[in-house]
Amino acid sequence: MNNANPQSNVILLIEQFTQCRTQTVHLTKTLSDEDMLLQSMEDASPTKWHLAHTSWFFEQFILMEYVDNYKPFDPHFNYLFNSYYNQLGERHTRAQRGLLSRPSLSQVFKYREYVNEAITKLLVKPNIAYRVVELVELGVHHEMQHQELILTDILHALSCNPLYPSMRTVTPVINSDDTQTAETNKKPLLANNGAETRFSQFEGGLYQIGAQENVFSFDCERPKHLVYLENFELANTPVTNRQWLEFMQDGGYQTPTLWLSDGWTQVQQQNWQAPLYWVKKAGRWFSFGLDGLQALSLDAPVCHISYFEADAFANWANARLPTEFEWEVAAKQLNIEGNFQRQNHWRPQMSDKHKPNLQQMYGDVWEWTSSPYIAYPKFEVASGAVGEYNGKFMCGQFVLRGGSCVTPIEQIRHSYRNFFYPAQRWQFSGLRLARNI
Amino acid sequence: MNNANPQSNVILLIEQFTQCRTQTVHLTKTLSDEDMLLQSMEDASPTKWHLAHTSWFFEQFILMEYVDNYKPFDPHFNYLFNSYYNQLGERHTRAQRGLLSRPSLSQVFKYREYVNEAITKLLVKPNIAYRVVELVELGVHHEMQHQELILTDILHALSCNPLYPSMRTVTPVINSDDTQTAETNKKPLLANNGAETRFSQFEGGLYQIGAQENVFSFDCERPKHLVYLENFELANTPVTNRQWLEFMQDGGYQTPTLWLSDGWTQVQQQNWQAPLYWVKKAGRWFSFGLDGLQALSLDAPVCHISYFEADAFANWANARLPTEFEWEVAAKQLNIEGNFQRQNHWRPQMSDKHKPNLQQMYGDVWEWTSSPYIAYPKFEVASGAVGEYNGKFMCGQFVLRGGSCVTPIEQIRHSYRNFFYPAQRWQFSGLRLARNI
Amino acid sequence: MNNANPQSNVILLIEQFTQCRTQTVHLTKTLSDEDMLLQSMEDASPTKWHLAHTSWFFEQFILMEYVDNYKPFDPHFNYLFNSYYNQLGERHTRAQRGLLSRPSLSQVFKYREYVNEAITKLLVKPNIAYRVVELVELGVHHEMQHQELILTDILHALSCNPLYPSMRTVTPVINSDDTQTAETNKKPLLANNGAETRFSQFEGGLYQIGAQENVFSFDCERPKHLVYLENFELANTPVTNRQWLEFMQDGGYQTPTLWLSDGWTQVQQQNWQAPLYWVKKAGRWFSFGLDGLQALSLDAPVCHISYFEADAFANWANARLPTEFEWEVAAKQLNIEGNFQRQNHWRPQMSDKHKPNLQQMYGDVWEWTSSPYIAYPKFEVASGAVGEYNGKFMCGQFVLRGGSCVTPIEQIRHSYRNFFYPAQRWQFSGLRLARNI
Amino acid sequence: MNNANPQSNVILLIEQFTQCRTQTVHLTKTLSDEDMLLQSMEDASPTKWHLAHTSWFFEQFILMEYVDNYKPFDPHFNYLFNSYYNQLGERHTRAQRGLLSRPSLSQVFKYREYVNEAITKLLVKPNIAYRVVELVELGVHHEMQHQELILTDILHALSCNPLYPSMRTVTPVINSDDTQTAETNKKPLLANNGAETRFSQFEGGLYQIGAQENVFSFDCERPKHLVYLENFELANTPVTNRQWLEFMQDGGYQTPTLWLSDGWTQVQQQNWQAPLYWVKKAGRWFSFGLDGLQALSLDAPVCHISYFEADAFANWANARLPTEFEWEVAAKQLNIEGNFQRQNHWRPQMSDKHKPNLQQMYGDVWEWTSSPYIAYPKFEVASGAVGEYNGKFMCGQFVLRGGSCVTPIEQIRHSYRNFFYPAQRWQFSGLRLARNI
Ligand SMILES: [Fe+3]
Ligand SMILES: [Fe+3]
Ligand SMILES: [Fe+3]
Ligand SMILES: [Fe+3]
Repeated sequence: MNNANPQSNVILLIEQFTQCRTQTVHLTKTLSDEDMLLQSMEDASPTKWHLAHTSWFFEQFILMEYVDNYKPFDPHFNYLFNSYYNQLGERHTRAQRGLLSRPSLSQVFKYREYVNEAITKLLVKPNIAYRVVELVELGVHHEMQHQELILTDILHALSCNPLYPSMRTVTPVINSDDTQTAETNKKPLLANNGAETRFSQFEGGLYQIGAQENVFSFDCERPKHLVYLENFELANTPVTNRQWLEFMQDGGYQTPTLWLSDGWTQVQQQNWQAPLYWVKKAGRWFSFGLDGLQALSLDAPVCHISYFEADAFANWANARLPTEFEWEVAAKQLNIEGNFQRQNHWRPQMSDKHKPNLQQMYGDVWEWTSSPYIAYPKFEVASGAVGEYNGKFMCGQFVLRGGSCVTPIEQIRHSYRNFFYPAQRWQFSGLRLARNI
Repeated sequence: MNNANPQSNVILLIEQFTQCRTQTVHLTKTLSDEDMLLQSMEDASPTKWHLAHTSWFFEQFILMEYVDNYKPFDPHFNYLFNSYYNQLGERHTRAQRGLLSRPSLSQVFKYREYVNEAITKLLVKPNIAYRVVELVELGVHHEMQHQELILTDILHALSCNPLYPSMRTVTPVINSDDTQTAETNKKPLLANNGAETRFSQFEGGLYQIGAQENVFSFDCERPKHLVYLENFELANTPVTNRQWLEFMQDGGYQTPTLWLSDGWTQVQQQNWQAPLYWVKKAGRWFSFGLDGLQALSLDAPVCHISYFEADAFANWANARLPTEFEWEVAAKQLNIEGNFQRQNHWRPQMSDKHKPNLQQMYGDVWEWTSSPYIAYPKFEVASGAVGEYNGKFMCGQFVLRGGSCVTPIEQIRHSYRNFFYPAQRWQFSGLRLARNI
Repeated sequence: MNNANPQSNVILLIEQFTQCRTQTVHLTKTLSDEDMLLQSMEDASPTKWHLAHTSWFFEQFILMEYVDNYKPFDPHFNYLFNSYYNQLGERHTRAQRGLLSRPSLSQVFKYREYVNEAITKLLVKPNIAYRVVELVELGVHHEMQHQELILTDILHALSCNPLYPSMRTVTPVINSDDTQTAETNKKPLLANNGAETRFSQFEGGLYQIGAQENVFSFDCERPKHLVYLENFELANTPVTNRQWLEFMQDGGYQTPTLWLSDGWTQVQQQNWQAPLYWVKKAGRWFSFGLDGLQALSLDAPVCHISYFEADAFANWANARLPTEFEWEVAAKQLNIEGNFQRQNHWRPQMSDKHKPNLQQMYGDVWEWTSSPYIAYPKFEVASGAVGEYNGKFMCGQFVLRGGSCVTPIEQIRHSYRNFFYPAQRWQFSGLRLARNI
Repeated sequence: MNNANPQSNVILLIEQFTQCRTQTVHLTKTLSDEDMLLQSMEDASPTKWHLAHTSWFFEQFILMEYVDNYKPFDPHFNYLFNSYYNQLGERHTRAQRGLLSRPSLSQVFKYREYVNEAITKLLVKPNIAYRVVELVELGVHHEMQHQELILTDILHALSCNPLYPSMRTVTPVINSDDTQTAETNKKPLLANNGAETRFSQFEGGLYQIGAQENVFSFDCERPKHLVYLENFELANTPVTNRQWLEFMQDGGYQTPTLWLSDGWTQVQQQNWQAPLYWVKKAGRWFSFGLDGLQALSLDAPVCHISYFEADAFANWANARLPTEFEWEVAAKQLNIEGNFQRQNHWRPQMSDKHKPNLQQMYGDVWEWTSSPYIAYPKFEVASGAVGEYNGKFMCGQFVLRGGSCVTPIEQIRHSYRNFFYPAQRWQFSGLRLARNI
């Protein structure tokens, strides 16, 4: 949103709001009431909870503050659907979100309607406060983040079902393809592809990092500041499943010297042998996704790997992960286009290693960077509960960049910083190699 | 079932089977699809899982064995709905039963119909094997046990919802009554009741213990054998909430010398301060039940206590728990009647301490005995998977007797042995005092 | 101690006291200061702690009570060396006993001397109270229990050292013998022995169980009471290592149907494949003991097994464990003699399966019975802190009978009840088969 | 060591080696054999283990490689005293280092002598390889790190003893002083001190960061590289106990909005209420140290705090932690002097807030920076097992700078990077505030 002239953009904002709210519901069309209650681990939340929480966000941060005598839909919901805002009071235990069979799903849909109406009514008022516009925009971006989480979390939940259910049909889907023959599992694979990884070069120097000022951004992308970079090069495509199989065949998961110390501990404790959602059946690899169990697509970017795995792979390949600053410098020139949520694949798509330039920087898979998620110089935490949005998570996590095949394209910027703990694998996360030159 | 003449009873058996299968579904009428997926702890299972597992039992033990070319409803179900029978193969992780959004509830209801038809068809065949009759009878008793578990487990699941949902209405129910005024929480309570606990005496000697031979019984109730008892007396009523409050006010939960060593560890680790499902609001005690949150009924039997609590209370009261043999000897003379599942209270009902004889031995609350659940002399484990029904659990658990307000009356016998671990509290469990004389 | 005439026995008691206190120290002669600080798990305690705690027992229960103006050796010691007596106040965390480098070992030896003198001085007083005599006798029996624990616990601690240190020499001991050739590990072993297990028969009926009145006994062995037994037979020897290898070769640790449900959980979680302290080197079995790593003696009783393993073995052998009552009835006729601590083997010795009568009932290995450790009818807990000695542990444990090769013979009676949890293996515990007849 | 001319420095190196090895032993003079076996948590190691492991380092990296036919002192020691080098084979479980009563302490001292002789003999050889000189120098710096750990770890071990033992005397030391009167615990404290925190200013720009080339440094301090900094200011002294008390009185440990999300989780789970080793007795604060329990010195730097606490304090004070680059730029100008191990205080000493310039940058307490411990641009991991020294720990930890009162002064440089996890508190860690200007 152009901060310089917010009022003139209110009509556009209502449209964005409406589109976003509709899309969230649209994502759930093929899910049953039962599916939407599933919580398969503490990190993930039920679809129903996401549906309610995104409404709660508008209610708590806007309606309760800016609508006179606003009557909340249900006074219990502040307790039930607060995620982590200490300033908004006590809340339901995170690990027990899946136990909320009441309120029912239909009640939650009514809640959404109620909030939609109230927000729209508020926005069409004359002389609406600029802070309201800002907060609605924040709420829309917040909801887009949860759209991605809805898909990411339900994938994990469905993966716990031995039936391998697909989000798209009621019956299990197990497909195979011809690109992965028996011998591809045994021999060096890069050669088969007929293309070595190609790299694009970038010159070092002082670069300005951070969000543009006239578009929406989260606080953690700000303020703009200078960072000094050395010369570097970036691989033109993300690392593919074909390359990952080669890593595995070369003993990647059995070689401690490739791994960070904490990463090796995870490998052993969790018995990691392959990326999350990879399943071996009768000697062939499949990967489980929102479309069920599919034969592994060798030339698609590897997905659902942890930071630890990304780092070990880079060591094995005599390369390294890019810093988030290197990634941003490289991405700044590119158009934001690619395989996003709206393409409806919800799976990373094939890379073309023959092309001479950077590809798939946006979309397909989030790319782990080597940068810990910390504050930019002179970072300011917003006052009030909104200040808890990002800042309090700046410890122990790593930055991912570029969005994935389940990310709404409207959410992504060259400055957008996603962040997860190094052992987490349920996100649509992959990697791209970097090297010093 | 009269073992002497099983064939003549097949018509009765079909009736029992049909009645039982119908009743199971009936119990779930007020639950939503979402409610029926809830699993709030590893010990408890979702309603949907119970609905499927009880059908699986008939399918695996009878239909697969005794129907030629039987086509199972869904070949995955053996994996999904096997509870703990190692001889029937691998099975779905117990702690993840709540993650099975698929198969859907409606699919599970179809499964029930499919099994109902197949069993009925089998039973009306001429010359049906006696073993089939025995196994159907076992299946019906198995299903009755799960009827009780459906109610017990959903109560636990609903108790994790801060809305205190009732199984009987959609809106929260919080009732109060006048029997518990402010001062009842502070003063000695036995006196208020106007009645001391009365005891009935029994003479010692050699008694025959165990199931009658001409009625259905589980293997663990057999064989009949002799046990030598000393003189003893039993309280005429179970311990009431009023008495339990007195124990609490006297520091029961703060006095280690009243407790077994392992019990005291639990008190501290779990921070037990009152029975499970007791809630204090504005200085008054309520208890959560299938009918929502209700003011504590002072003269009803205390419920949802562990063995450890029962034992500590008995120490405090200068009494002890009865052995299961003492209980059986006393109960053998009584008619089996009382507050069972079919009375539809699903809550323990008030005791009358003035009556001179034993009351509420059957129904209301399961009564913890001091007897570890072990094999009777010359106990024989049945061959085949059915042998895993009881025997392998004979370690570390204690026997409870008499049934509760959620038990089907048809399930109960003077010889019936229920069993749970001493720290478990989610069953409808209470206690009755015994003393040496 | 003959209760009828305690005073005349004071001289004998002083002798017992002195002998016992000396023997405790004697046991530690080959241990270094460092060895005596080791605590390898919460269940086990450092030698130094045992040395101090046994003195604390005399100080707290006798000297503080019965000596006017008694000045404790160090006022901190009540906190440091109280094991589990809630009535004697707060105490040092059990799991951190190994962190008490101070007081030093030499200080603890001074503590022992101080207490020895004070007790002796008290006992030689004229008109000593009978209660004092009783308590000193209790203290001696308490200390004998801890003598066994010193050996049992240090064995566990030393077993955590990859050097396989022996208690008897500074250098590692790894011996082999000729009885276990390569093929003994592969073929049926009972036959090799040339002797089938023989059984002795006992007639059923009403038996009196419990301690004699004119000798020392713990409260849990009392009071005498009647128990009705069926006919039964007991194996003449404990189960041997040879038999255990046969069980292992027959897949005993891989066959869930042999195991109690909780036992099978342990097998999988702890990855049990053999008894505790068994080590396989170059295809041959060794067992670690206080004399280091020794070749497995095939005809010695199996040792260091859990109740779960004992029960599984009995199932495999189409037999069962005896009840503690059956064991007591059988043992009552026998002289108390065998391989005890004073024989200085500190390892179970070979059985002779050819002998026609019961052997090794006393000594060698504690024998797991199928009896849960519960109170005898009309059991009375002693008043005061001494009442915490046994009663509060009567939950979840099983009774073992007969003593072992590290038990002081003076401690053992036909009525003596030892008790441990069914998963515990670090005691010198084995089994003897029983059968119905 | 001056890399340009290593050979001429061998005599100096032998001196350094000898001095360092002697100092390590000297540190343990007041500890008993029992003290030196203590391991109070997995993070900390026994003194004896440190004594052996530092010798193992010389043996494995130098003697085994560069001495022909070197006969190791004991072939088991590679297994026992390897810390974390995967390339040097399997090793003893870290958490069980405290269970190694054998080899005895005296054996370990012999091991040290054996290695000392062998290294000295090697160094006096003519034409010694430059790599040997480098590795001995590394070994000396490695041993200095373990000297600090010996003191840090034994402090934690002794803190688990309720007797509050001092490392300097056998009897407990509990001192008090007059600076902390009753009201200092209640009123704002900065004012009492009569001095506000003063700050020194630094100008932003491109700075060169990293180790000088002609002195010893660890790989993680290299290579030199450019970092762009904004203007900033640093507090002239570390935060003091007086200031920390003010933070506590203002509800610092009860206010979630001051804390990182993971930090708040720690506060609640560990029940943090004050820095580690603070003890409240009769309403007054003491802090436990190597000299026993001492009255809290209000004007000494706060010590034994986690990164989470440092960060929360900075938020509370409207300031922030410095980055490691800011710290390095400020420290580069200063002489390396202060309260180090050789001053023998082994406790942080008082700050003088009146002085106008930076103080206590070196020594007293390690200062948490806001910088995650990650690789510098173009960081190269050394080949061979030495490469596991630092690189594999570059995940999830934060950098501390400046050394402490238990650090050998020879170890410290302006570029020296220490690193620990944000929840760890047993190090001598404090903080210094920074601010944007
Ligand atoms: Fe959110
Ligand atoms: Fe069942
Ligand atoms: Fe004891
Ligand atoms: Fe080291």
